[in-house]
Amino acid sequence: MRCSVVAVGTELLLGQIVDTNSSWLGERLAAAGIDSLFQVKVGDNLARIVSTLRATLADADAIIICGGLGPTHDDITREAIAQIMGVDLEMNDEVALVIEQMFTARGRRMPENNLRQAMVPVGAKIIEQRRGTAPGLICEVGKKVMYAVPGVPFELYEMFERAILPDLLARSGEASVIKSRVLRTWGDSESGLNERLVGVINELEKVGNPTLAFLASGWEGIKVRLTAKANTEDQAIELLDTWDAKVRGQVEDLVFGVDAQNMESVVLQKLREKKLTLGVAESVTGGLVAGRLTAVAGASDVFRGAIVSYDSEIKFDLLKVTHGPVVSESAAKEMAIGVRKTLGSDIGLALTGVAGPAEQDGVKVGTLCVGLALPNGDVRSTTFSLPYGREQMRQFSVISALNFLRQSL
Amino acid sequence: MRCSVVAVGTELLLGQIVDTNSSWLGERLAAAGIDSLFQVKVGDNLARIVSTLRATLADADAIIICGGLGPTHDDITREAIAQIMGVDLEMNDEVALVIEQMFTARGRRMPENNLRQAMVPVGAKIIEQRRGTAPGLICEVGKKVMYAVPGVPFELYEMFERAILPDLLARSGEASVIKSRVLRTWGDSESGLNERLVGVINELEKVGNPTLAFLASGWEGIKVRLTAKANTEDQAIELLDTWDAKVRGQVEDLVFGVDAQNMESVVLQKLREKKLTLGVAESVTGGLVAGRLTAVAGASDVFRGAIVSYDSEIKFDLLKVTHGPVVSESAAKEMAIGVRKTLGSDIGLALTGVAGPAEQDGVKVGTLCVGLALPNGDVRSTTFSLPYGREQMRQFSVISALNFLRQSL
Repeated sequence: MRCSVVAVGTELLLGQIVDTNSSWLGERLAAAGIDSLFQVKVGDNLARIVSTLRATLADADAIIICGGLGPTHDDITREAIAQIMGVDLEMNDEVALVIEQMFTARGRRMPENNLRQAMVPVGAKIIEQRRGTAPGLICEVGKKVMYAVPGVPFELYEMFERAILPDLLARSGEASVIKSRVLRTWGDSESGLNERLVGVINELEKVGNPTLAFLASGWEGIKVRLTAKANTEDQAIELLDTWDAKVRGQVEDLVFGVDAQNMESVVLQKLREKKLTLGVAESVTGGLVAGRLTAVAGASDVFRGAIVSYDSEIKFDLLKVTHGPVVSESAAKEMAIGVRKTLGSDIGLALTGVAGPAEQDGVKVGTLCVGLALPNGDVRSTTFSLPYGREQMRQFSVISALNFLRQSL
Repeated sequence: MRCSVVAVGTELLLGQIVDTNSSWLGERLAAAGIDSLFQVKVGDNLARIVSTLRATLADADAIIICGGLGPTHDDITREAIAQIMGVDLEMNDEVALVIEQMFTARGRRMPENNLRQAMVPVGAKIIEQRRGTAPGLICEVGKKVMYAVPGVPFELYEMFERAILPDLLARSGEASVIKSRVLRTWGDSESGLNERLVGVINELEKVGNPTLAFLASGWEGIKVRLTAKANTEDQAIELLDTWDAKVRGQVEDLVFGVDAQNMESVVLQKLREKKLTLGVAESVTGGLVAGRLTAVAGASDVFRGAIVSYDSEIKFDLLKVTHGPVVSESAAKEMAIGVRKTLGSDIGLALTGVAGPAEQDGVKVGTLCVGLALPNGDVRSTTFSLPYGREQMRQFSVISALNFLRQSL
């Protein structure tokens, strides 16, 4: 099965918005075993949209068209689809009613042009709108199919999962349920993971289901994605559970979370379970650890705060670090002890390092020292050699330090 | 002149990498008055690359092909171009020598496959490689032209500016120099800016050169881009200076920087000029202000550090804020005074607010109170109502507070 993607919008061609929708769809389609061999951006011009759809459809079984379903005069995806289908547009009264109700529910008058969103090519099926005002469309052309979805990402994602993927799978004659699970790892390279998992991968290749893929995600670590096909949801979950356990059997020490869990949410949850509060002392990362932790709603029940001791004097005066070079494991330990005391937290975590551009006191760019002061008085430290590049080094520092804390909990 | 973009790489279709190159090129081409009506992604498959190039070239005067120029077996852009040109590939000895020298200069042995990058379609012109190992190509096909550049963004950007844009302009018969200047604004909406600049915009429409465009950039503010065409660089700069002054005449209060300057680099520079140091107290932003400031190399000469007083007790105990509700201008002022004293800085900047999901002590989500303690003992404060959404509210808080500080300096 081949499914191409056409992203509609002049703003995409002008670079005002980066087209992330087709990348997201490409990943989801690949996980479902559907080839997406061609993805194209086209502007808000009827003739060019029509010719692009025609050319794209010639070489695919299905197209997903993103964008151009809104209420304004340059939203012309509906018109283009009607031309390809050789039909007219007609007002769909049910859709129109839903749109009107959305406005009245918010106590607002509906601008007339919103009813454009209720115009539907004759013969098209509606994908009910649940998050925005524009519905999606399923439009058959001979044995092929065009899906139209709004360009707003969260509307598109929801319609894809609810209506388009099941429809594509039904048409492809494949198993009707596809489920993925992502094991999130930190601490080894893709080739290192591959080496440790070679037995599991060989076994998987023999059975063919589920499939396993590595997704390198920079400073978010490497994701190991299992995708199972089955006739029922329960069967798919059972398959995932079985192979999840086999994967963990080889790389348990590297797995920090599943699916949408990230390092900061996992660390906060562990602290919560152990009823421990955290204070952070940051130098090289300058507030990024605290910034990432507080991006998680509800962090305040375990995260007390941070001291960004960027200037060495603050390390000496406020955190009571011994005068001398400040990028060392002993300085990191003292920072951790100091911040635990100053902020009155159960645990103190400290980071000091060199982000560059130049080395500092003879310590190389990329060096990160992490200190950890625990409730029982135990104090630990470690040193990482991280990639160069100021931003990259700082972001790797955040996750490396949080992972060190996670492993110590 | 029409210039389409073809991005080559299976990893783009699988969504492992988002194609930002074509967006960047689209913006640069638009600024130069060149239409980019079609941008497409295609995988590492020779037949499909060739058919895509052929179809794209039929409807454009030029194509920029990004990616597929590396040393491995799936880098096949060179082969595809040679097919379109109807020629063979030949080893270019000069290019080969440069690649070999790059390896020996780093004291590394060159893997043999690197010489693939020195294979060039007969008749193609070379764009010398300065940042990576692969050269770019300029390949004429009749009256049309195909440019090939590496997919690595910083290599692509440099080759585009140095070789491709001048070549495109020469072919289009347009003025030979195009220069842009971006005035970066914060504090008004796009429609508000438009209203204030309507006189300048009308005048510009009459003369036609330079052109003016608004680029909405979320929490980086709205960019006003002037693009001038001229026969010499000096003439282009003179045009930009003239209209830069006219734009500033209307919106001087909103302009915080030019081109690559961002709010944090501007604030740090102002502090440096005035020989003042800064300490920050953050609550709602949880370290993001400090994190942004320290992303700028060299921040340490004026930025002393920050106290992330996420837990209210830290506001009371360490910053000596009066017990009571902590999202108010009076609390923000006390935080600013407290952090100035605790960190021993000349200036104290403080942020307290509600990022949601729920309101706090009756204060609405999106409320940000900023306090500022200045060297002369003066203490100021202000309140912003920012957009909802935890991440958005926090990021808008960072730039709003830094802008308040900038205006006070």
